[in-house]
Amino acid sequence: MDIIEGIMTRRSIRHFTGELISDEQLDTMLRAGFQAPSAHNCQPWEFIVLRDKEKLKHIKEFHKYAKMIEDAGTAIVVCGDKNRQERIGFLVSDTSAAIQNMLLTAHGLGLGAVWCGIYDQPSLVDNFTEILNLPENILPIGMVVVGNKIKDRSIQDRYDENKIHYDAW
Amino acid sequence: MDIIEGIMTRRSIRHFTGELISDEQLDTMLRAGFQAPSAHNCQPWEFIVLRDKEKLKHIKEFHKYAKMIEDAGTAIVVCGDKNRQERIGFLVSDTSAAIQNMLLTAHGLGLGAVWCGIYDQPSLVDNFTEILNLPENILPIGMVVVGNKIKDRSIQDRYDENKIHYDAW
Repeated sequence: MDIIEGIMTRRSIRHFTGELISDEQLDTMLRAGFQAPSAHNCQPWEFIVLRDKEKLKHIKEFHKYAKMIEDAGTAIVVCGDKNRQERIGFLVSDTSAAIQNMLLTAHGLGLGAVWCGIYDQPSLVDNFTEILNLPENILPIGMVVVGNKIKDRSIQDRYDENKIHYDAW
Repeated sequence: MDIIEGIMTRRSIRHFTGELISDEQLDTMLRAGFQAPSAHNCQPWEFIVLRDKEKLKHIKEFHKYAKMIEDAGTAIVVCGDKNRQERIGFLVSDTSAAIQNMLLTAHGLGLGAVWCGIYDQPSLVDNFTEILNLPENILPIGMVVVGNKIKDRSIQDRYDENKIHYDAW
């Protein structure tokens, strides 16, 4: 798939066949996450791959936008290491770029994926910290839920010329 | 360019020929920014295209990592609208995904680009707010500097298996 076509046509996918993605597809997605840019090249990300059925079921109970997680079968929680990047704004930016790389890679592989937000929703941060046994310096930022999609979604053009400004507001 | 190849080979580019990118290339990059996912589909981004030579020169004076901005000739400051997304964490995530889409698009177009961080460095936020005349609800998050690159950079493989965890930390 062409990179610009992929960026323009990616949609959030929330309906899955139940068939797991392959280990090779998972590896490609993780590698894409690592290739994101980061402030001062700190690379402050950590990736937690979730496939344990009990954990997925548990997440479904406390994350109201992750109801599809069991059908998808695979989730990747992307965390930021506050010891590597002390500025939370940069930490969120770096990990979010990693997540976007992973979503685009899933699309390029013909998979479906959706970004479920975690930070800065305090109850979600607390719940993920607890069930993943995260150390104090590791902040869960977002979760990519990925699987084989039932069908494609139509392209949504979000272009809005009112949001483009030249040389000042 | 293939989407996965593009994600794996993109590098930050800081050396430019001085020739401006075309209006069509700029338009493609902006359209890519709009196609990012956002929490609850709020689409809280705003894009400020900078080409005014005086403004670029001014930015160079206060942003120590933007010394290449005059050679590049074009910068896009990506801002978040706090009235559309009240959670700063989500606002930073959404706008960062838009920035990553734009960086990848520049790479796909054969251009060079680099992400210069703004939020959450208070002095940079204040300086951009002032020179761009931003209203109170508009937060500058990051700036994409883009131009025609002098040469490609070699691929950097950032993969680190120590940063991958399975089912828990």
